[in-house]
Amino acid sequence: MSAVLAAEAASAPKPRASSSAAVVLLGTGVVGGAFLKLLNTPAAAALRLVGAANSRRQQTDPAQLADRALREKLRGQGDARDDAALLAALDASGAAVRVIVDATASAPLASRHVEWLARGYHVVTANKALAGGDLPGWRALQGAVAQGGRYGDSATVGAGLPVLSTLRRLRGCGDALLTLEGVFSGSLSYLFNQYDGSRPFSALLLEARERGYTEPDPRSDLSGEDVARKLLILARNAGFALRPDEVEVESLVPEPLRGVDVDAFLARLAELDEPLAARHAAAKARGGALRFLARLNQRGRARVGLVEVPAGHPATRLYGTDNQFALTTTRYNTQPLVIQGPGAGPEVTAQALLGDVLALL
Amino acid sequence: MSAVLAAEAASAPKPRASSSAAVVLLGTGVVGGAFLKLLNTPAAAALRLVGAANSRRQQTDPAQLADRALREKLRGQGDARDDAALLAALDASGAAVRVIVDATASAPLASRHVEWLARGYHVVTANKALAGGDLPGWRALQGAVAQGGRYGDSATVGAGLPVLSTLRRLRGCGDALLTLEGVFSGSLSYLFNQYDGSRPFSALLLEARERGYTEPDPRSDLSGEDVARKLLILARNAGFALRPDEVEVESLVPEPLRGVDVDAFLARLAELDEPLAARHAAAKARGGALRFLARLNQRGRARVGLVEVPAGHPATRLYGTDNQFALTTTRYNTQPLVIQGPGAGPEVTAQALLGDVLALL
Repeated sequence: MSAVLAAEAASAPKPRASSSAAVVLLGTGVVGGAFLKLLNTPAAAALRLVGAANSRRQQTDPAQLADRALREKLRGQGDARDDAALLAALDASGAAVRVIVDATASAPLASRHVEWLARGYHVVTANKALAGGDLPGWRALQGAVAQGGRYGDSATVGAGLPVLSTLRRLRGCGDALLTLEGVFSGSLSYLFNQYDGSRPFSALLLEARERGYTEPDPRSDLSGEDVARKLLILARNAGFALRPDEVEVESLVPEPLRGVDVDAFLARLAELDEPLAARHAAAKARGGALRFLARLNQRGRARVGLVEVPAGHPATRLYGTDNQFALTTTRYNTQPLVIQGPGAGPEVTAQALLGDVLALL
Repeated sequence: MSAVLAAEAASAPKPRASSSAAVVLLGTGVVGGAFLKLLNTPAAAALRLVGAANSRRQQTDPAQLADRALREKLRGQGDARDDAALLAALDASGAAVRVIVDATASAPLASRHVEWLARGYHVVTANKALAGGDLPGWRALQGAVAQGGRYGDSATVGAGLPVLSTLRRLRGCGDALLTLEGVFSGSLSYLFNQYDGSRPFSALLLEARERGYTEPDPRSDLSGEDVARKLLILARNAGFALRPDEVEVESLVPEPLRGVDVDAFLARLAELDEPLAARHAAAKARGGALRFLARLNQRGRARVGLVEVPAGHPATRLYGTDNQFALTTTRYNTQPLVIQGPGAGPEVTAQALLGDVLALL
């Protein structure tokens, strides 16, 4: 079979030979690092890295950019951060397609996306801060896209699971979203897929944190804010121009633990246990289970929080850090269109970024 | 909220004003009829129908094409079928984008797709006979696409569930399919989602036929050939250039019932019951269930047939006529990427055709 595979690979979909792109990468954390690895694979042969930056340093020297240890070296070497020099490197590349890949979570960087689009650069991003930020920013983004700017946002929701593309495709065909429901956080998916009351929630949380499933400060996950941002992006793509404060968010972080520093929070983690144990027991007594769900209805009401779902609910059928997105539309109305799978992780997120860059060719 | 919705609709993704397409529709059955309805919606404003044909007659007169009763009128009126006249209507349209939409299941028509692509027409199809047909046809299609022809095939698998697009996107990023498993037939999904041994399988089948869930001759579904064709299309898109006879197919039609006419088959339907009842009972005794699955592994082995799956298997969690596609890849390897939902029906299939046409603009 390998001969057949090799033969077929030659006719696999690929960028047209005539097109190539110059790429600047912002952010060399876990996602940016995975993206750099992908750039060194044959799938990215049409792409040329002309700049890379972390939050403090950057590199535009081709020899340095080709160094496999680029990410590590940027920690101590390179030029000071300077957007203008990165854009100049894109311009100097002579490439017709010039792409800025934002693999950070920086709000200041996201606030520049619209300007970059307006100046003719394409933006591909895992950074949710613009599309999932305030409404004027979203509207400015829509304006830039209407002027022909192309914005690759697959990595902002579900780490590239084909949710945004599907939603936009259905909408482009005149279909309308009736309800959207799902589990949009890998860490919260894991926690509630695992939590069965036999161990304290805090013990499970610490274990998840050690495995790298949560942010270093788990309150980023537990607050529901990350889920709310994803729901906001989906809702806006479904036609609901919601403000962030229109998404109702239930935080799992008790009020007294919200203002303290990370160490203090981790030291007092056991304060989470009793309320959750009580809710779990009550749900279990009724044959249900707890899941952290995001929901949008056809009137644009958006809510994120812990929900008791009945046995057999689709969200009870998830494993590991799976995300799940169930779309009921005018035409998908007998059963929802469901997309689920790993919705977090550097490798799939980086692949989503690469897919969006390749789609520009 | 409606004001917000209306405002946002203006900035919804839509075809650029400068581009439009001329469309010829082949086939005015249930899918073609649903497509005609979609052409009369705002989502299709950029499309102009310049020809429509059923298997015997066609129409290229704008006044007739604009008639809402076009489909019915074509049964008794119109010109005799003539591809050349339809292509001439596309050429005469002056449109830069000329699209032939094949909503038939005709193998002779599918055999012309490659020629049409070579002549500069785009082809959008629900017809599986080329991509799921013999290997030389598939290779010719790949050749035409490599030359720049664009082939919209979303409707051939899962009635437009975003499976082929996802598979191609992953592959374009250098990801490789390890296993593909799923339920690819709406009728077989329904039959085995329902079948619990309490009623004879034949009674359930007749009921499904009356509801329009099966083909008029249910052997088209029960033979597994339709599922095999979809698996072939998916396998080829995953890089396995399989011949049709390389897909192992288990037919649910007993040997003696394969050659008889439809009425005789329907009269002898009860002959299906005992073997299935025995298999169901055996599966149930082991805590399992029967599902009609398609499977492809990383060595390109493809099989379609009835499988006893354990309780909790994803395929046991389907409702109605849902299809399900589970993709395990190099990068989606801890849990599969799963896409499920209604995988049959005129409305969603027609929407898939429309989406592929709009993607050409």
